[in-house]
Amino acid sequence: MTDAVLSRLREALGSALSTDPSTLESTRADKSGHVSATAPLAIVTAGSIEDVQATLRIANEFRMPVVPRGAGTGLAGGAVGEAGEIVLSTLAMNRVLELSVADELAVVEPGILNGEFNDSLHEHGLWFAPDPASRAISTIGGNIATNAGGLLCAKYGVTREAVLGLKVVLADGRLLDLGHRSVKGVSGLDLTALMIGSEGTLGVIVEATLRLRPLPRGTVATIGAYFPDIEAAATASAAITAAGLAPAVMELLDAASLRAIDAHLGSNLSSRGTAYLLVQTDGVASASEAGEALAIIRSLGGEAELSTDAAEGERLLAIRRAFHPSLEAQGTVLIEDVAVPRSMLPEMFRRIGLLEQKYHIAIPTVAHAGDGNLHPNFLIDGPATGGPPEVPDRIWEAAGELFAAALALGGTLTGEHGVGILKRRWLGDELGGDQLGLQREIKRLFDPQGILNPGKVF
Amino acid sequence: MTDAVLSRLREALGSALSTDPSTLESTRADKSGHVSATAPLAIVTAGSIEDVQATLRIANEFRMPVVPRGAGTGLAGGAVGEAGEIVLSTLAMNRVLELSVADELAVVEPGILNGEFNDSLHEHGLWFAPDPASRAISTIGGNIATNAGGLLCAKYGVTREAVLGLKVVLADGRLLDLGHRSVKGVSGLDLTALMIGSEGTLGVIVEATLRLRPLPRGTVATIGAYFPDIEAAATASAAITAAGLAPAVMELLDAASLRAIDAHLGSNLSSRGTAYLLVQTDGVASASEAGEALAIIRSLGGEAELSTDAAEGERLLAIRRAFHPSLEAQGTVLIEDVAVPRSMLPEMFRRIGLLEQKYHIAIPTVAHAGDGNLHPNFLIDGPATGGPPEVPDRIWEAAGELFAAALALGGTLTGEHGVGILKRRWLGDELGGDQLGLQREIKRLFDPQGILNPGKVF
Ligand SMILES: Cc1cc2nc3c(=O)[nH]c(=O)nc-3n(C[C@H](O)[C@H](O)[C@H](O)COP(=O)(O)OP(=O)(O)OC[C@H]3O[C@@H](n4cnc5c(N)ncnc54)[C@H](O)[C@@H]3O)c2cc1C
Ligand SMILES: Cc1cc2nc3c(=O)[nH]c(=O)nc-3n(C[C@H](O)[C@H](O)[C@H](O)COP(=O)(O)OP(=O)(O)OC[C@H]3O[C@@H](n4cnc5c(N)ncnc54)[C@H](O)[C@@H]3O)c2cc1C
Repeated sequence: MTDAVLSRLREALGSALSTDPSTLESTRADKSGHVSATAPLAIVTAGSIEDVQATLRIANEFRMPVVPRGAGTGLAGGAVGEAGEIVLSTLAMNRVLELSVADELAVVEPGILNGEFNDSLHEHGLWFAPDPASRAISTIGGNIATNAGGLLCAKYGVTREAVLGLKVVLADGRLLDLGHRSVKGVSGLDLTALMIGSEGTLGVIVEATLRLRPLPRGTVATIGAYFPDIEAAATASAAITAAGLAPAVMELLDAASLRAIDAHLGSNLSSRGTAYLLVQTDGVASASEAGEALAIIRSLGGEAELSTDAAEGERLLAIRRAFHPSLEAQGTVLIEDVAVPRSMLPEMFRRIGLLEQKYHIAIPTVAHAGDGNLHPNFLIDGPATGGPPEVPDRIWEAAGELFAAALALGGTLTGEHGVGILKRRWLGDELGGDQLGLQREIKRLFDPQGILNPGKVF
Repeated sequence: MTDAVLSRLREALGSALSTDPSTLESTRADKSGHVSATAPLAIVTAGSIEDVQATLRIANEFRMPVVPRGAGTGLAGGAVGEAGEIVLSTLAMNRVLELSVADELAVVEPGILNGEFNDSLHEHGLWFAPDPASRAISTIGGNIATNAGGLLCAKYGVTREAVLGLKVVLADGRLLDLGHRSVKGVSGLDLTALMIGSEGTLGVIVEATLRLRPLPRGTVATIGAYFPDIEAAATASAAITAAGLAPAVMELLDAASLRAIDAHLGSNLSSRGTAYLLVQTDGVASASEAGEALAIIRSLGGEAELSTDAAEGERLLAIRRAFHPSLEAQGTVLIEDVAVPRSMLPEMFRRIGLLEQKYHIAIPTVAHAGDGNLHPNFLIDGPATGGPPEVPDRIWEAAGELFAAALALGGTLTGEHGVGILKRRWLGDELGGDQLGLQREIKRLFDPQGILNPGKVF
């Protein structure tokens, strides 16, 4: 059967189909640290909607599993291909099809990188707000499929708020046109929203109509603040939001994070405090908002500097930017992604501290404090035998306790990265049996033979 | 069978069940002008989640149709009960269950009126942004079930952007808990978004976790501008958005609207222009934004006054507020609700002008110009025989042409009011056969026996 599928695919797709071993090898992993046991059967690098339709039509006929894949920067194992699967890459479908400055919208193919797309908008005074930290390397299609968030989303919204319409190819190859070009519309069920965050399980996104925003005006003000402990810093960030301020960026780093950055950069941030809070305001109210935030920070014991100078602001931001590279320098990292109501941030940090004690590990944690989204990081050592590192059971055990804590505080096990393979086993804890059952039935409706991203999410 | 159902319902619900003819009579209509042929069988005024569950369990057992109903202010016939149906009112479930100022969220029952709820928030410096013009008389549950918009939603978002989580009772009586208290979360499919705007066809909303906002700071600035023609006014509104300004309110009234208001109030607005554009800015950038908007308006031929005085601003707004009462004074009105991309507003007004000529009728039209949402109004005369007025065929014919024009311009047949009964026959034109089929299958999944709001939407 495998041969039959491959020859049908080759006939329909020509050189868009590849079975080159090193190409296939590269699809066994994403950025989560998870690596599949065996390489997939083939990869289709679609150049058009028709390529995507042909691939799915043939795969559906033969009941062959298909794994949609963008840039492979995901942190949940969602785009990972394995034995017997066809990886369907939309990375080469990367054109901007239309830009309407008057309507503040663009129509794009899914494979364009978020950063590249944004660069092309700036000369028009516009931007696409969703800004995952991976924006330079991740695709718009992947951002939509995971409902990506980022540093700016407390103020400017997640990806769902920035998508007006989608073209989607269903498992059987049919093309659906969802949503509209108008900013409002309530005709029927909101299938656009249902697709956003569906992680490749309901259909393949082949085109998106995106809502753009005018670039914010005014000067950007940046505050870097050191606190004697993480709970005080978390309390300050919660107080800033509760005061009605809307920082564009509000990021929190704990003691273990500062130590990791110090080790990497040779800096000595740790000597200034055990927690770092970065606040950036933009727009016309930028200066006054920054002034108020500064007062709150100082009143809560923070030692802070405020700057409206671009180079100086960049220096304060660079501390946050150094976080991921510093950890990666230490080895493979499992980047977790819980979210809690903002007021629960101090409590969540306290519980992470307890987990560090219980499991005798450091869990460097950075938080998008403006929306209560925490990324606790677990360091994973490579196996003694060599080969790709696997997350050891005791790390999963600690992560399991972390998820339970987030749920107990009214939060979720994934704020922005998605479920993929890695969080499947906890999904029922959050959704409950009835809801999980209903979600599975919706999946079955869209994809009766279960060929789209099987084993992911559900 | 009817008797059996009623006795079972009475046993479970006691005095929450009513078959009083005058109570039933009041559920034959909403505010759309549509009146059902015959009164429904019974009305349940639920006092609790358990009441809703019991009603649906029994109705499902007997395959009796159930019509969820809030305040009955809908404009699509969605909450209208008819022969053999049970109306399930959530109007009496109207408590605020929790208010968290720190997390800027509230948990409410569905029957609370939007206006009342907002009044209770103001002392805490918070508000719930969705603001349908009907906010004083419509429920939060109805707002969610229709994904209501309003005057402020171009800047502050529609209802979907303000809902974090929902409790929903399914057709078989099971209770689902969707979403979370954190502002972010991507665990599984977004069923919260799927419920929003589902018009009572997928389940009954019995509790909502709402995202609140801090009250905007700064002074409000209001501009009232008269233009020589509607296309110039529409061009000005499009130019204001394209300039990157974000007015809180931007409303457009055409010549027929001004004439209706003049007739009602004894004013002579029509002598000042044939189109009125109302712009209101708020927040810290209010004054500078209003200044720029004023310059754009004047450069495009508008004659405008700008005020930051509250009483004076109120006088300028009152013109817009007088619109609905002025039309109602003339008889029954079919309020339409198309939306187009903002840049298409001038063209859409031109096409409405052509329809006025073709059908020899006035179609007074007001638009939420900031998001391209138009409400063309059709006056309906009562039938010569007395009794409730019905929309005559030739008005539906004109409305049908209106919908086709909106779709041709990249828009939708309903920007905020929903499909209900009245737009069912055009829904397929917008969605296409494949999407409509998929939506129907989702409906069947949630409600296999089709007891929830049958004949509405699908
Ligand atoms: C350093 C780093 C920082 C990061 N920071 C953030 C952050 O701040 N916020 C955040 O949200 N994420 C972040 N991520 C995670 C990741 O970048 C995002 O999830 C991103 O949206 C994935 O895009 P991608 O193109 O790489 O998709 P992939 O990894 O290729 O795929 C991700 C998922 O989407 C599906 N998919 C991809 N394309 C399509 C398509 N066209 N149609 C249907 N399904 C599709 C895949 O099947 C898979 O389930 C970060 C990752 C890294 C490595
Ligand atoms: C003067 C006037 C101005 C208006 N202005 C606007 C406006 O600016 N923007 C706007 O969007 N709308 C507007 N509307 C329309 C209407 O007020 C909204 O649609 C409102 O959201 C309906 O709320 P309701 O409580 O009256 O719901 P109802 O009319 O009772 O019901 C509306 C729909 O929601 C369903 N429903 C109600 N409650 C529930 C529940 N608990 N669970 C599940 N389904 C439920 C019903 O089955 C029905 O399909 C206006 C109406 C009037 C009369």
